[in-house]
Amino acid sequence: MPYVNIKITNEHVTPEKKAKLIEGVTQLLVDVLDKNPETTVVVIDEVDTDNWGIGGRTVTERRGTTK
Amino acid sequence: MPYVNIKITNEHVTPEKKAKLIEGVTQLLVDVLDKNPETTVVVIDEVDTDNWGIGGRTVTERRGTTK
Amino acid sequence: MPYVNIKITNEHVTPEKKAKLIEGVTQLLVDVLDKNPETTVVVIDEVDTDNWGIGGRTVTERRGTTK
Amino acid sequence: MPYVNIKITNEHVTPEKKAKLIEGVTQLLVDVLDKNPETTVVVIDEVDTDNWGIGGRTVTERRGTTK
Amino acid sequence: MPYVNIKITNEHVTPEKKAKLIEGVTQLLVDVLDKNPETTVVVIDEVDTDNWGIGGRTVTERRGTTK
Amino acid sequence: MPYVNIKITNEHVTPEKKAKLIEGVTQLLVDVLDKNPETTVVVIDEVDTDNWGIGGRTVTERRGTTK
Repeated sequence: MPYVNIKITNEHVTPEKKAKLIEGVTQLLVDVLDKNPETTVVVIDEVDTDNWGIGGRTVTERRGTTK
Repeated sequence: MPYVNIKITNEHVTPEKKAKLIEGVTQLLVDVLDKNPETTVVVIDEVDTDNWGIGGRTVTERRGTTK
Repeated sequence: MPYVNIKITNEHVTPEKKAKLIEGVTQLLVDVLDKNPETTVVVIDEVDTDNWGIGGRTVTERRGTTK
Repeated sequence: MPYVNIKITNEHVTPEKKAKLIEGVTQLLVDVLDKNPETTVVVIDEVDTDNWGIGGRTVTERRGTTK
Repeated sequence: MPYVNIKITNEHVTPEKKAKLIEGVTQLLVDVLDKNPETTVVVIDEVDTDNWGIGGRTVTERRGTTK
Repeated sequence: MPYVNIKITNEHVTPEKKAKLIEGVTQLLVDVLDKNPETTVVVIDEVDTDNWGIGGRTVTERRGTTK
């Protein structure tokens, strides 16, 4: 029954990698907490690098890239 | 003053249906908890089926569709 | 498969009222979007009035109450 | 180490303004709580006006605009 | 730089198990997406069974328990 | 109309400091985006140091403290 939300920057993550994240985190909840995978929900949010900040600056700025 | 976030898969939900969700959940909070609708905020997130997992697999995979 | 998060101030909401919210919002998603209730997840967060702000002030301050 | 999520309507907010929000909220956490800015994360979500409701109606409806 | 939020029901999860979840999901993001673990943030929310609904009913009701 | 969620570790933050965070972030949204403060909502979540991870370890572990 857990709900997991994963936020990452939007940088061309493939559907295969997203499927691996979903499979892996669901299995982790089975292994550690014995949760039922059938009702475990995982939502991935991909966030524009202009909209993600760390250290007070956007990821776009930190990378010194112009988009 | 409540805040409600509704996450659904992104599958061509019409603006009319989204308006009904917002109206309905706001009214529910008035009816059950006597909340003030004027400061009740509802945000709907529509999530790509590649980014939503349940049972350890993406919704795209579960539907057996190729996007 | 929807996921709904409802945030309200923590003011002695009874388990019965929380059950009504969960039932009501799940039914709304069935009625408006034909979602499967069995995999519809609703999480209610009750937030201290010191930790909720609107109009730039905490709810505790707005009510003129000392806790 | 704080995490801040800012949700606003999606109305052509410039990268410069988003950078100012990120810088400002990070500095606020340094000033008020003496947090380390290097591990302070800020994520901005821009939400379609069809998907944002207040007072039981979408922002699109409230503005009387057709999109 | 990812941010992960895990919501589970509040049922006496030990600090050791929570540490395993945090370690495991961080490693998953390193393995699948080559993310930097030093800036990967994981937050676990433990939610009262009265406040978690699935299938339109609270977890407390589904378990047939009185709290 | 913005909604802001601030997550910090639960380490005896005073109501006065929380009020300053709410006031400051609301003013920031007025200054940068000309938002209406009356409908700006801020919610602060205080998270146990056992439930917050960074670098793959809980904050409790990183501080070398036993709680």
